[in-house]
Amino acid sequence: MPSDDDQQYNLDFIFKPKSMAVIGLSTRNSDNPGNAIFSKNLMEMSVKTYGITPRADEIDGHKVYRSFDKLPEIPDLAVVAVSAKNTKSVIQEAAELGVKGAVIIAGGFSEAGREGMKMQNELVKICSDYNMPFIGPNCVGIYSPPILDTLFLPSERLVKPKAGNVAVISQSGGVLIDQFFISLKERNIGVSTAVSIGNKAMVNEAMLLKYFEKDNTTDVITFYLEGFHLGDGRRFCEEARKSRKDVVVYSGGTTSAGKAAAGSHTGSLAADGSIMKGAYKQYSIVNPINEQDLQMTLKTYSMLANPFRKYSTMAIHGDRIAVLSVSGGHGVLCADLLDKYGLGLTKFTERQKEDISFLLNPIASRIAGLNNPIDITGSGTDDDIVNILEYLFNAPNVEMILTLLVPQVPQLTMGLGRAINKVGNKYKKPIIAYVPWTPKYDLIRDALELQHIPCAHTIEETVQMANALKLKGIGGIRKKMSWNSNN
Amino acid sequence: MPSDDDQQYNLDFIFKPKSMAVIGLSTRNSDNPGNAIFSKNLMEMSVKTYGITPRADEIDGHKVYRSFDKLPEIPDLAVVAVSAKNTKSVIQEAAELGVKGAVIIAGGFSEAGREGMKMQNELVKICSDYNMPFIGPNCVGIYSPPILDTLFLPSERLVKPKAGNVAVISQSGGVLIDQFFISLKERNIGVSTAVSIGNKAMVNEAMLLKYFEKDNTTDVITFYLEGFHLGDGRRFCEEARKSRKDVVVYSGGTTSAGKAAAGSHTGSLAADGSIMKGAYKQYSIVNPINEQDLQMTLKTYSMLANPFRKYSTMAIHGDRIAVLSVSGGHGVLCADLLDKYGLGLTKFTERQKEDISFLLNPIASRIAGLNNPIDITGSGTDDDIVNILEYLFNAPNVEMILTLLVPQVPQLTMGLGRAINKVGNKYKKPIIAYVPWTPKYDLIRDALELQHIPCAHTIEETVQMANALKLKGIGGIRKKMSWNSNN
Repeated sequence: MPSDDDQQYNLDFIFKPKSMAVIGLSTRNSDNPGNAIFSKNLMEMSVKTYGITPRADEIDGHKVYRSFDKLPEIPDLAVVAVSAKNTKSVIQEAAELGVKGAVIIAGGFSEAGREGMKMQNELVKICSDYNMPFIGPNCVGIYSPPILDTLFLPSERLVKPKAGNVAVISQSGGVLIDQFFISLKERNIGVSTAVSIGNKAMVNEAMLLKYFEKDNTTDVITFYLEGFHLGDGRRFCEEARKSRKDVVVYSGGTTSAGKAAAGSHTGSLAADGSIMKGAYKQYSIVNPINEQDLQMTLKTYSMLANPFRKYSTMAIHGDRIAVLSVSGGHGVLCADLLDKYGLGLTKFTERQKEDISFLLNPIASRIAGLNNPIDITGSGTDDDIVNILEYLFNAPNVEMILTLLVPQVPQLTMGLGRAINKVGNKYKKPIIAYVPWTPKYDLIRDALELQHIPCAHTIEETVQMANALKLKGIGGIRKKMSWNSNN
Repeated sequence: MPSDDDQQYNLDFIFKPKSMAVIGLSTRNSDNPGNAIFSKNLMEMSVKTYGITPRADEIDGHKVYRSFDKLPEIPDLAVVAVSAKNTKSVIQEAAELGVKGAVIIAGGFSEAGREGMKMQNELVKICSDYNMPFIGPNCVGIYSPPILDTLFLPSERLVKPKAGNVAVISQSGGVLIDQFFISLKERNIGVSTAVSIGNKAMVNEAMLLKYFEKDNTTDVITFYLEGFHLGDGRRFCEEARKSRKDVVVYSGGTTSAGKAAAGSHTGSLAADGSIMKGAYKQYSIVNPINEQDLQMTLKTYSMLANPFRKYSTMAIHGDRIAVLSVSGGHGVLCADLLDKYGLGLTKFTERQKEDISFLLNPIASRIAGLNNPIDITGSGTDDDIVNILEYLFNAPNVEMILTLLVPQVPQLTMGLGRAINKVGNKYKKPIIAYVPWTPKYDLIRDALELQHIPCAHTIEETVQMANALKLKGIGGIRKKMSWNSNN
């Protein structure tokens, strides 16, 4: 039996359409999902947008059309925001006219019981026959900046991440527009496309993975998933294994309580948490342990996808890390956390300690802690940090550097970020920085991040970034070795 | 043998002095620690501040004095910022004159070896003889708004939390001024006094606990500790058990890597992580698992210390929690996390589900998830949330409510926080809110927090707050029962 696996629709018509029609406009309520989608794309996005309603020629001051066949052109994409029971006829009409893709917003399909499942299967049948793939139903929409935004929420209520290289696919629209969007924005991570997959009746996880694998603007592909339709989990994992991009899955419904909640949320059976966790490991899929870990993993992979930062010197095993701190307590917490995440500090030789001491200014040299973590103390200067970093970049027993910057101390300057870049750019060894999270020190953080040195907001985040690099850099994740052979 | 335990100095002269003298001013470097402390207290704080240097009558435009005996009055507090070897003579002079407390900034004492330990013991001897307790040495200073700030860092480099009800005592100055200060400010938690205890040669953890136990402005006492001097751990735990305030200890040096780092940082032997963890549990000390958990615990205890929010209806066992969400995915993640933290969802009866459904607007009612977590979906309104909350406040099988607000959905208004307060204030059942962390929704968050409903920034934080309440509310922590008997 040939598997569905071989079927791959052209999803460019959905994610990068030249034109789209929105169906489901209310003449009375301009906050209606259809109206919101129509108006935001017309005013804010680049796609050519048409509105369709049988009941008006103008809505909220914009020209609209009575039906598909009255449009001046056949649109690439139909965004269908009518009720579940009216969706079929709209889809039928669009498909017959030659529309090439659809997003179906309405709920009330498979998640609502047997009758809904039947209606959903009818949509799949029509769209398969006409080769018109659709996202949804029961979804919030898609966001593909700067082209289109079919999320049915008014833009002013959203926090939208910048355009960038992470594709985000979520089984929960709420998690997409809230947790993902807000944290991506907060951590300055850019999105290539964001997709709320809803009931994923036709376009599923594996198809999206295949699509974004070939998408030039995407380097990292991340999912929030509560479970798979029967058979889809394996297909997804097999696609992920073939992928040369970073695949990161954040799982909901991993406990029995969560699984029960997922059951009533998406109607699909959540896979057993421990099974999927094991499978993800087998299939080179990174599976962060919490929201913060997810953010740090995405940020690290997103920032280091830049060719300039493809580190080549060595594989990263995570057991020979050097920590350079301005504060002893920060070093202690970092050492604890490295242990917690299964990462290890390198051991400096006596000669190395002597060298490091010699590189410090005389006052700091007298009181500094020279073991690893190195504690240059509050008497440290920009030069101390830069000189020791250069030493560590050259040290053969150091595979990765974490530097814990505490610019509150008197002698560090706002030029520190730029100074670190000058030395960091000379070497191909990974470096991650902790910078206190306050606008006061943005000058340091921005300098580092603009040159692709990721900055964490807490010590644990610093260690989560190091852990993400380890997952990328070792043989356990086969494809990740491309990192080390590309340069 | 009478234990030191019985000795309690009057620390008001240190934390709430009427006057203080700063010794150790440089005539050449106005960024010197002494100069920074002198100038910031003169310009920014309320304490009467004198500067002392034998080499000038004026520094940076401010009058200073040649020696202690030239001051117009004997100050309550001496802040000693001279080098380690010059500290003894200054302390001797201050003690003989009748100064009542000191803060000793210099490093180079017990943490620096045998010679330093000898010098440190001499300081303790003098100060014991003269009944002049001191903080330090080897510390960053103390901060007691609005009275004084002896942190030797320029204020513009710091992020200072507002004045409030949490006393913060840290063995690491860096952790105090960075992690604590920035996160306390960020989460809107106020500080009564912040203390960098350094080598804690004379004033130790137990004495500070005793002091803040009697301090009217303090409701929560928190520590960052890397270890205890021999015997001090037990004494500290015994004080904590007697305390009727919330005692929260965040531990550094809990792993062998961290312990080694702590050894070179503070010179004191870190206690075995697992021993202290067990002891803290025995002695009613809350011991958060990570930085985020620490923040959430402090925030919860700090906000709920307000008499108005002393919940009285029942003990909190953490196993009958109701979750009210606007997004199904948020509910799934919350259910997973409650399980992870050992907390449990209450089970609604069929009758309760029917009641809840009846309270919803007709559209939401058709698609809402009525199990626990309740998912009112993106079709929910302010009224839906308020009505269901009131129902849950009255439900006998609900002991605590977590409400996951996603105001991105079209029908929720910026009046939601105020509307929730109106119903929340009628009941004595704990409620915690998740509100997306963006200034866009500050109107909702501020309304809730001003009326002491704590708001979390992530789902995990919401659950950490619930867990903090459980630790407070059950019999395992005996004294916490005062919560339930005060009203």
